Amino acid sequence: MGNEQITTELSGASPPNGGCSHPSETGFAGVNVPPPDHILSVGYAFWKAKALFSAVELGVFTELADGPLDLKTMTTRIGLHPRSARDFLDALVSLRLLRRNADGSYANLPDTDLYLDRRKRTYIGGLLQHLNARHYQNWSLLTRALQTGEPQSGALATGSYPALYTDNTAQKMFLSGMTAGSLLAAQALAAKFPWKDFQTVIDIGTAQGCVPVEIARAHLHLTGGGFDLPQVAPAFTSYVKEHGLSGRLRFYPGDFFVDKLPVADVLVMGRILHNWDLPTKKLLLKKAWHALPEGGVLIVYDPLIDDDRLQPHGLLSSLNMLIETSGGFEYTGTECAGWMQEVGFHETRRELLGDVHSAVIGIKTKA
Amino acid sequence: MGNEQITTELSGASPPNGGCSHPSETGFAGVNVPPPDHILSVGYAFWKAKALFSAVELGVFTELADGPLDLKTMTTRIGLHPRSARDFLDALVSLRLLRRNADGSYANLPDTDLYLDRRKRTYIGGLLQHLNARHYQNWSLLTRALQTGEPQSGALATGSYPALYTDNTAQKMFLSGMTAGSLLAAQALAAKFPWKDFQTVIDIGTAQGCVPVEIARAHLHLTGGGFDLPQVAPAFTSYVKEHGLSGRLRFYPGDFFVDKLPVADVLVMGRILHNWDLPTKKLLLKKAWHALPEGGVLIVYDPLIDDDRLQPHGLLSSLNMLIETSGGFEYTGTECAGWMQEVGFHETRRELLGDVHSAVIGIKTKA
Repeated sequence: MGNEQITTELSGASPPNGGCSHPSETGFAGVNVPPPDHILSVGYAFWKAKALFSAVELGVFTELADGPLDLKTMTTRIGLHPRSARDFLDALVSLRLLRRNADGSYANLPDTDLYLDRRKRTYIGGLLQHLNARHYQNWSLLTRALQTGEPQSGALATGSYPALYTDNTAQKMFLSGMTAGSLLAAQALAAKFPWKDFQTVIDIGTAQGCVPVEIARAHLHLTGGGFDLPQVAPAFTSYVKEHGLSGRLRFYPGDFFVDKLPVADVLVMGRILHNWDLPTKKLLLKKAWHALPEGGVLIVYDPLIDDDRLQPHGLLSSLNMLIETSGGFEYTGTECAGWMQEVGFHETRRELLGDVHSAVIGIKTKA
Repeated sequence: MGNEQITTELSGASPPNGGCSHPSETGFAGVNVPPPDHILSVGYAFWKAKALFSAVELGVFTELADGPLDLKTMTTRIGLHPRSARDFLDALVSLRLLRRNADGSYANLPDTDLYLDRRKRTYIGGLLQHLNARHYQNWSLLTRALQTGEPQSGALATGSYPALYTDNTAQKMFLSGMTAGSLLAAQALAAKFPWKDFQTVIDIGTAQGCVPVEIARAHLHLTGGGFDLPQVAPAFTSYVKEHGLSGRLRFYPGDFFVDKLPVADVLVMGRILHNWDLPTKKLLLKKAWHALPEGGVLIVYDPLIDDDRLQPHGLLSSLNMLIETSGGFEYTGTECAGWMQEVGFHETRRELLGDVHSAVIGIKTKA
């Protein structure tokens, strides 16, 4: 049998870059057919997310925040079984979540050190744990949601925040998930908006109060607080107290379907509008317009869909709203600016917030 | 309040490419801190996989194989509820799985048309459905697997294929998942290996017989078949008959831990070695060496880890083996070539198979 020929044919056929030929549909001729790489990469993408979630859960990046550690030390420190410890840590290297040094030790990268070390204020691991604990399971039911138009996620699916909040554990998990998801946007808002020109800010649907806390920490002249259902008061009060801001931020209890919104120079609606259908979105915008003084500002932010509808995050986030809510959906900045103008705002602006969120800002001016 | 300043600061701060500044850890100064984009992209990656799985399940790509269709037609044809139909199809566009034409109609891309139209022989949707039905859930338990070293996947976890195969439905799903996962590798093997120099081929752990079927279809002089546990015989026989190859391919019943392997010019072990621990891997290689004639060839393929341990697929696939089996793991081509030489093979070669698999080929020659 032709061993030399095997050697030749096999060596010659396949360049080491993986660009070997693919069987064609009709005759396995191996010419000019597109490779399946992209499809396979998308299909196996959940492996990557889960590896990251486990790394956050096990504290990989927190352990490495003080400096590189070798395989054996890491295995012990984060409680890995030796069977897959090396493959797991190398997988994180391959995903550009860790660096492997020449001596084989593992180290954080600049982004994973900043965002995934639990001891830093920029930690967003809570968001990833929220995705892992809540959304990974709920997305199992995507096909059914697409077929029925019905949410697949329990209490919240009915739009019933009061129901969700009757269960203390569910409330706590949900609220801290909300904080983790808002943190980067809140920090960006605190950094980028001209707060020195305003005196008061109230965050509508504030949950623990992440947004007013980040803004008030950075701007000592501001007062205000957060508006949410009365059940949320203890969570807000304790979060604000933890951050030493009880003197400047207070809780405004209320139901935005029943009550007027509180008055402030700036109102924020972050990750609120996307939970609701179009009439409700417009109702909330109108209520904000009524509550604002002349010259007041409404800041809306959500994981907006880009105007060209070509970027994945906003579109997929809209499917998440399908799964999570009974009428919610994401929308483009142009759509939001149009709704704002419909309810009375005359000037609107857009702002990227540096994570997955973008803001649409409306100013209440005379026509 | 300074409306002009809002306008100026907000317009100036953020270029439309999304490259706006990020709050720094210490003071929200917005300078020189790494963005969280990559971490967020990995964390939300499961959304992408699930959108693809739903698209395959709903037959999106099969419907579009005859030409572009508009939103309304697609919504009806694939049974979408109108609520999220547009966001879903646009999400597939954003993931480069569909194209949206200037008239708004949707069309397949070359790769999704070739690999995700059910009517084509290159269809790999079965693999994606296998990932969706089996692995997506099992990966929920990754952290526990990493901590305990124990598999998390039911019957197969104990290494008990006989137990798995006692349940007919489970057997059928598992076997067709195996076929879907092997199809591209089998077609690549059929196209690239110098089969004209050999007369017989037997696939070890053959399941439905995807590998011998693809090879025998392309090379009319070959005979042989597949070796697997006796319970698999009906599935193999019916699959081979469907492909009109019963005259050239037969089933070899046996247990590779108990019985000798059957004799052929070429033996194939595809996605077999990775299921087992190192002593078992070497035992199976040794058994293949014994069964081969002088000049015979063993083709091993698996989702190999690259020698530099820097590419995600093989490493993550090794974590999949952790979740799915009690001792399995992926390995590098260099490791495999070393084990082959240990058991007696003198020449070894490597070959990329164009999907996620790579082959290591050993030739039984005199020293």
